[in-house]
Amino acid sequence: MTKKIEIYGESLPNIPWEEQPTESNSVVWRSQQNPIIPRDATPNSNSIFNSAVVPFEDGFAGVFRVDDRSRQMNIHVGRSKDGINWEIEADPIKFNYAKAEIGKSEYKYDPRVVKLDGKYYVIWCNGYHGPTIGLGYTTDFKEFTQLENAFLPFNRNGVLFPRKINDKYVMLSRPSDNGHTPFGDIFLSQSPDLIHWGEHRHVMGTTSGWQSTKIGAGPVPIETSAGWLLIYHGVLTSCNGYVYSMGAALLDRDKPWQVKYRTKPYLLSPQKEYECVGDVPNVAFPCAALHDADTGRIAIYYGGADTVVAVAYTKVNQLVNFIKHNSL
Amino acid sequence: MTKKIEIYGESLPNIPWEEQPTESNSVVWRSQQNPIIPRDATPNSNSIFNSAVVPFEDGFAGVFRVDDRSRQMNIHVGRSKDGINWEIEADPIKFNYAKAEIGKSEYKYDPRVVKLDGKYYVIWCNGYHGPTIGLGYTTDFKEFTQLENAFLPFNRNGVLFPRKINDKYVMLSRPSDNGHTPFGDIFLSQSPDLIHWGEHRHVMGTTSGWQSTKIGAGPVPIETSAGWLLIYHGVLTSCNGYVYSMGAALLDRDKPWQVKYRTKPYLLSPQKEYECVGDVPNVAFPCAALHDADTGRIAIYYGGADTVVAVAYTKVNQLVNFIKHNSL
Amino acid sequence: MTKKIEIYGESLPNIPWEEQPTESNSVVWRSQQNPIIPRDATPNSNSIFNSAVVPFEDGFAGVFRVDDRSRQMNIHVGRSKDGINWEIEADPIKFNYAKAEIGKSEYKYDPRVVKLDGKYYVIWCNGYHGPTIGLGYTTDFKEFTQLENAFLPFNRNGVLFPRKINDKYVMLSRPSDNGHTPFGDIFLSQSPDLIHWGEHRHVMGTTSGWQSTKIGAGPVPIETSAGWLLIYHGVLTSCNGYVYSMGAALLDRDKPWQVKYRTKPYLLSPQKEYECVGDVPNVAFPCAALHDADTGRIAIYYGGADTVVAVAYTKVNQLVNFIKHNSL
Amino acid sequence: MTKKIEIYGESLPNIPWEEQPTESNSVVWRSQQNPIIPRDATPNSNSIFNSAVVPFEDGFAGVFRVDDRSRQMNIHVGRSKDGINWEIEADPIKFNYAKAEIGKSEYKYDPRVVKLDGKYYVIWCNGYHGPTIGLGYTTDFKEFTQLENAFLPFNRNGVLFPRKINDKYVMLSRPSDNGHTPFGDIFLSQSPDLIHWGEHRHVMGTTSGWQSTKIGAGPVPIETSAGWLLIYHGVLTSCNGYVYSMGAALLDRDKPWQVKYRTKPYLLSPQKEYECVGDVPNVAFPCAALHDADTGRIAIYYGGADTVVAVAYTKVNQLVNFIKHNSL
Amino acid sequence: MTKKIEIYGESLPNIPWEEQPTESNSVVWRSQQNPIIPRDATPNSNSIFNSAVVPFEDGFAGVFRVDDRSRQMNIHVGRSKDGINWEIEADPIKFNYAKAEIGKSEYKYDPRVVKLDGKYYVIWCNGYHGPTIGLGYTTDFKEFTQLENAFLPFNRNGVLFPRKINDKYVMLSRPSDNGHTPFGDIFLSQSPDLIHWGEHRHVMGTTSGWQSTKIGAGPVPIETSAGWLLIYHGVLTSCNGYVYSMGAALLDRDKPWQVKYRTKPYLLSPQKEYECVGDVPNVAFPCAALHDADTGRIAIYYGGADTVVAVAYTKVNQLVNFIKHNSL
Amino acid sequence: MTKKIEIYGESLPNIPWEEQPTESNSVVWRSQQNPIIPRDATPNSNSIFNSAVVPFEDGFAGVFRVDDRSRQMNIHVGRSKDGINWEIEADPIKFNYAKAEIGKSEYKYDPRVVKLDGKYYVIWCNGYHGPTIGLGYTTDFKEFTQLENAFLPFNRNGVLFPRKINDKYVMLSRPSDNGHTPFGDIFLSQSPDLIHWGEHRHVMGTTSGWQSTKIGAGPVPIETSAGWLLIYHGVLTSCNGYVYSMGAALLDRDKPWQVKYRTKPYLLSPQKEYECVGDVPNVAFPCAALHDADTGRIAIYYGGADTVVAVAYTKVNQLVNFIKHNSL
Repeated sequence: MTKKIEIYGESLPNIPWEEQPTESNSVVWRSQQNPIIPRDATPNSNSIFNSAVVPFEDGFAGVFRVDDRSRQMNIHVGRSKDGINWEIEADPIKFNYAKAEIGKSEYKYDPRVVKLDGKYYVIWCNGYHGPTIGLGYTTDFKEFTQLENAFLPFNRNGVLFPRKINDKYVMLSRPSDNGHTPFGDIFLSQSPDLIHWGEHRHVMGTTSGWQSTKIGAGPVPIETSAGWLLIYHGVLTSCNGYVYSMGAALLDRDKPWQVKYRTKPYLLSPQKEYECVGDVPNVAFPCAALHDADTGRIAIYYGGADTVVAVAYTKVNQLVNFIKHNSL
Repeated sequence: MTKKIEIYGESLPNIPWEEQPTESNSVVWRSQQNPIIPRDATPNSNSIFNSAVVPFEDGFAGVFRVDDRSRQMNIHVGRSKDGINWEIEADPIKFNYAKAEIGKSEYKYDPRVVKLDGKYYVIWCNGYHGPTIGLGYTTDFKEFTQLENAFLPFNRNGVLFPRKINDKYVMLSRPSDNGHTPFGDIFLSQSPDLIHWGEHRHVMGTTSGWQSTKIGAGPVPIETSAGWLLIYHGVLTSCNGYVYSMGAALLDRDKPWQVKYRTKPYLLSPQKEYECVGDVPNVAFPCAALHDADTGRIAIYYGGADTVVAVAYTKVNQLVNFIKHNSL
Repeated sequence: MTKKIEIYGESLPNIPWEEQPTESNSVVWRSQQNPIIPRDATPNSNSIFNSAVVPFEDGFAGVFRVDDRSRQMNIHVGRSKDGINWEIEADPIKFNYAKAEIGKSEYKYDPRVVKLDGKYYVIWCNGYHGPTIGLGYTTDFKEFTQLENAFLPFNRNGVLFPRKINDKYVMLSRPSDNGHTPFGDIFLSQSPDLIHWGEHRHVMGTTSGWQSTKIGAGPVPIETSAGWLLIYHGVLTSCNGYVYSMGAALLDRDKPWQVKYRTKPYLLSPQKEYECVGDVPNVAFPCAALHDADTGRIAIYYGGADTVVAVAYTKVNQLVNFIKHNSL
Repeated sequence: MTKKIEIYGESLPNIPWEEQPTESNSVVWRSQQNPIIPRDATPNSNSIFNSAVVPFEDGFAGVFRVDDRSRQMNIHVGRSKDGINWEIEADPIKFNYAKAEIGKSEYKYDPRVVKLDGKYYVIWCNGYHGPTIGLGYTTDFKEFTQLENAFLPFNRNGVLFPRKINDKYVMLSRPSDNGHTPFGDIFLSQSPDLIHWGEHRHVMGTTSGWQSTKIGAGPVPIETSAGWLLIYHGVLTSCNGYVYSMGAALLDRDKPWQVKYRTKPYLLSPQKEYECVGDVPNVAFPCAALHDADTGRIAIYYGGADTVVAVAYTKVNQLVNFIKHNSL
Repeated sequence: MTKKIEIYGESLPNIPWEEQPTESNSVVWRSQQNPIIPRDATPNSNSIFNSAVVPFEDGFAGVFRVDDRSRQMNIHVGRSKDGINWEIEADPIKFNYAKAEIGKSEYKYDPRVVKLDGKYYVIWCNGYHGPTIGLGYTTDFKEFTQLENAFLPFNRNGVLFPRKINDKYVMLSRPSDNGHTPFGDIFLSQSPDLIHWGEHRHVMGTTSGWQSTKIGAGPVPIETSAGWLLIYHGVLTSCNGYVYSMGAALLDRDKPWQVKYRTKPYLLSPQKEYECVGDVPNVAFPCAALHDADTGRIAIYYGGADTVVAVAYTKVNQLVNFIKHNSL
Repeated sequence: MTKKIEIYGESLPNIPWEEQPTESNSVVWRSQQNPIIPRDATPNSNSIFNSAVVPFEDGFAGVFRVDDRSRQMNIHVGRSKDGINWEIEADPIKFNYAKAEIGKSEYKYDPRVVKLDGKYYVIWCNGYHGPTIGLGYTTDFKEFTQLENAFLPFNRNGVLFPRKINDKYVMLSRPSDNGHTPFGDIFLSQSPDLIHWGEHRHVMGTTSGWQSTKIGAGPVPIETSAGWLLIYHGVLTSCNGYVYSMGAALLDRDKPWQVKYRTKPYLLSPQKEYECVGDVPNVAFPCAALHDADTGRIAIYYGGADTVVAVAYTKVNQLVNFIKHNSL
């Protein structure tokens, strides 16, 4: 009855993978090795979380949020053969930039990485008189060039699509305020040149339950035969603070601001100790997903409790069906 | 010196029971089997907590708060032979009702159940343009009929006494606001017909320490020779949020709005992992108590961290004496 | 084209009246004598406002909110021959009551008065462990008897309909919180005996603009051939505080919780100095309306800036047509 | 000693003008005719304020913020021979637009107008899932075309420069949040096409006193030999709310994100009754300035108390010298 | 029946005086010349208010709060022959000080002045990493010496008694926070040397009505046969902000932290336009009182709407009797 | 290269000590025995934390914050032979005092203890109409005498230096407000007699990261050849509440209000379960340090999660070098 869902992407047989445990009744299941990166994986780190990985050369590379022990937020390069065991550089990325004003950055956090036009673009939350969307690229994960900030502050969770659509670059983001923003919808913006952005579209807003306070795009959208697969986070406000969970939506392939399906239940919520206890209790925050076009396997990387990096798995068929059958 | 306290109620030799551990220095002690109901006891549950049980047929029945994975709050039927091992229905209770307006319910949570006039009345927090006190009944835990909401919003923690007093039905409740209310006293209302309520009386307010922010009635009051035994919760606001603990009071049997004694210390505060870590850290929230008139045993059911169900024990003599000797 | 609207009520040719000024482009127009009652009309008053008047004997009587110079809020009797010039008693109303608990009242404010079953019922915001709806009656405006509070706190703006509907007494109110409540809808409750209330119904909520923060019933509803004419207040929150304006709705005569029409624009907003400057700037708060069945004249009494009493006029035909043609 | 300051602009001998009163000790002085537009200048208006005017044909045209009596915010065309007596259209501007999404507008307020490339561009605060910067144009003040919103929400006080700089269109704006934002700096963005914007620059932030809470650009900057003359508003938060005053800065002509001088004192603060009393007390909010290159006369249009339109005058030499000698 | 009250102080027949108007029913009555000092009495002033005056030479001298047009707060010297017509210096007081750290002052406001040990001591709210109590003196109102701040921040409304009591200098103050503090009681501190302070005593707290949010000492206490006469301000929080009124208390002469009587009603509340409309609406804030021992006349100086200076009058007998007969 | 740092203090070879684990990459390391004092170490305790210890006789004595099961806060004596195993008295300290007013204390918490002039002074947060700095002394940890409160409320974290400096007693403190204060700098005050305090100096304020919300002195400063070694706490506000970490500074020996160095990174942040889970999650709060002049060993006592007492170790050379090389 249900048609097989294709991922339009590369064969990546070597991405991390664990089969679904038989006792699991959830469409997304956690790695038994979680947390895969502890908080002190670099000499000076307070925490490592909310990070992005991509296939690179014969293994993987990534850009990691590392907060140091002054609780300064920055982004670091990491490399891995297997996607599970990572070597993360002790020092933050140093960007080159064309104009002094571009290089102004009070802090950097919550990176995403996407391969686009042969380059690896990094998008992060950049401190420029408030949080906004920083943008840069590398070809080798050694030299990095910073470009103009995409938007005015206050903005977070900028995520670039992996190809141009209608001949425009396309970015998701969540306009915010200058604090622990208690609201937030996902918008989409378009650009001819990755510098100037316009034709902004509202994509989706908050609803109820786990996604009642704010929502934000997570990993780079995955192009599938069912539409763009967007994994995102949602926030609920309990009497004791925010709870960050993970959900998913399918966006129209040509008009990606149109939502076709969107999960009413979450895919994964903070329940394990490494998600419930840490610098910010009760956070599961996805920032990247590796996927294999052949098998439909997807490995989701997410931050736990704003402290560590964890991985969860799903398969594209299973996930897309779940989204369709549990849509708002 | 201290007179034996009688419970005016049934013999219930089969309620759950564990003797007080020798190392315990507290008047209420936890079950070694806690949490007795895990968060995922139904296929689609995010959490099961703040629930109510009663003796039913040769075992027990209950109404359970089950939040599903969209974090929608609802109430479900559960059945148990021993009061510890529960089978909880996967689907929420579906109520019959006489008028369409009665059936309007945006959400249901924190049920209490009481046997009264041969029926099992369920009282819960009902979403009707804000939280208010929903009321319904069943005779078999299969068919349920919903009645008119007892009060205008905003109200929570409605608890019905197990018999008429002065020929009136009597309900405790806590008037609230429409959010994570930072205040709240216990009031009492009276009704000739369970539909129309009036003659409202202030019962007790907040004081200091663990009960300084708000208080609310817990299990159905237990009628004893020392007065109505009311187990209730109190909330303290730390710099990192609310802390819910459990205390007790004795109310006058004929004028139950008059407080005779009330504990200055708590009976139990969130200290175990299943009380401190979960969807809402630091919550111990009592909603039901089974009691055996012969032995004076009391088994208190309470929610842990808004995530699981736990049980604690006490004996009526011990508890009443504690209340009298540690009264405000 | 537009059918004449009848008021179902008494002939009251002597109510205050001024014809609409030719330059007025509003359906409600202010008295040229405003404010008709100054803030210091009694020896010890800080302010007199938000008050209620009814035809009585050969003139008028009323219950007035008088805040004294300690800013204690209370209600006082007033009498007038013409409805414009009032003699207000220096001392607050002293109520008789049957039980000590009934007489507990930390403060009284914002009264309404309605003739019902041959008595004059007074409804006000009564301080009983928070604001709730106080209720009492008089036959002579000399002796007053206080009854049980209608509802649990927190509630304000209780307004009783002038006759039973479906054999029940009917009350509008606005559930609130314990402060300067930033939300509030109008609900309706029903009672067989004016003591016990139930069958609560949501009537109408906030929308946008002048009625975006909260709304509350004003004068006693006027029964007309077009339905119950309800004049109400709405509140907008500017960056410098609340703005209270006046609107109107038509409710179904038999199911008065059903709104047939409701004004999108306000009828009157605070624009005159006595509405914009005073103890609370920018308040026009209606509490009473005199109406003459013969001519359709309506004189609306409202508080200005929480400081003085003012009057505005309209005619029932004109007002009902305005409501219908400017409905939300 | 002080060099004469030139305005680079048109001769406009017919702009409104009144000489400085001899008793005035302020660099900006109010019109004796204030408020020049009352709140009820159209049949259905609640208030008219924060509006923009330009020379047009042999007189003046403008776009006016008109809040109607539902307190819905919109923008209307107005025309005047003398800049003081205005005829404002009763109905809001209806925009043409190329795509349905562009036309989505929950509300429009606080317009600015600038002549650029032979068109009159209108910039306003546009409701698109929160306030953002709307953009449109007209050539005749009859037909209006709406373009894409310039930015993502949340943004206010968009002001377009009257010419391209470095071959880019240049816009000032103040990123905000979704309420009565208690912060806000002025930023600058650049565009090749008035659709896509980037190369965002921080221009200036809050300091102390009258400009300690937030600041925002006012009239279209005036090009002078001393730099771009920017009149702006600043907000102070008293214990009773916001106070909006008017100041000025000089920006570098080629790098207009560089501030050369900026007034420490305000130019004008709310002191007159039409500035202190109204829908929002204590607001003087400039949105437009007419200027005559020959005489250096400047007529500043500003909103009073979010209720009426007022005018104040200055001369370019006087003002520029004041800015330089009273700079932060 | 009532004993004559003596003021222990100087004969000052030349203080400002106006007899009580026959229509006044208040124990304190306003000057017909109010406001006696307008907001623009110095070339650069935004406002002049909350100021202190003393007899000096053959007339009066004072220290005035002058906010300039950047809204910087500072204190200036003023001189007057008659206490009504004042010449206020355009420049703030420049203090000498012994150590650099003493001279650090981000702002100065709300001065009081008292003659003590042959010097005129000035006490004000001093900005030193937050508001605290600044202290200095002069003998000639030309040269001023600043001493150490009396207390740690955050504190306001420091008022020094006019003589030592029990061989200690005595200061009233109101501990605060760093914003628009929503709480505040009056405390008393003692010092052997005007530098080191201790033996702090709570004097009085908030109650209800006009003095329910915070209270603070006003003029220097007046020594009378009935005790220290303390005029103070109280604040009520309406839904549209703070309202500052004036009350009075009698303190024990030897143990001035003991309150003998304290007015339940206010003496004067903001009701005149110059008290209700201005930079902060609804403020009447007393800071000084001239008194004549022979006649018992008292002239109270108070700020209106944080904008202007006003005067009100009373007589000691009348006021003390009022306090005693209207005490809490 | 780095000069040996001397501690000016006693030889204390018997203080608790554990060598740095080889895997530790932090300048401060935790005891393997943590938490050394559990929450229920006295019969009635809810929690024991934020406590102070000193060498006494042949072992150690201390003053411990014990919250009882009503969550009343008080301070108790404890004694230990080894500094790790403590016997804490079940009852709070009862102070003698010279005047009734001195003994008024609504609560006591967060004690520090220092030996000075042959006495053991206890300093704590004392409830006297709000939190302020209580002061008392003992010579034998049996009899305690309470002195005048040092400051007016609202204040916390009072810490006395272990000797007079410039012939004055010197106290650090953090002025606060009356709740969960979201700001706070460290100030210093001076006294000739431990009763009257003045010459207040600002020492250091908040910066960013872990010390961005507020800071407060911890243990009694340790005199070293590099200056006064001050261990202090800093607070960061996450979206889920406060996080308390530990840092250090070096103050000038003669002008201890001058900061010479101050750590940009924290020394220790809440990462262990006993620091992250408890009555207040994510708290590491230092209150005392034992130090041995011979070896430079330092044992820091700190509260975990406002629930238990823990110990961490460092050596003076290592710590001072770290402070110097990681200074802000």
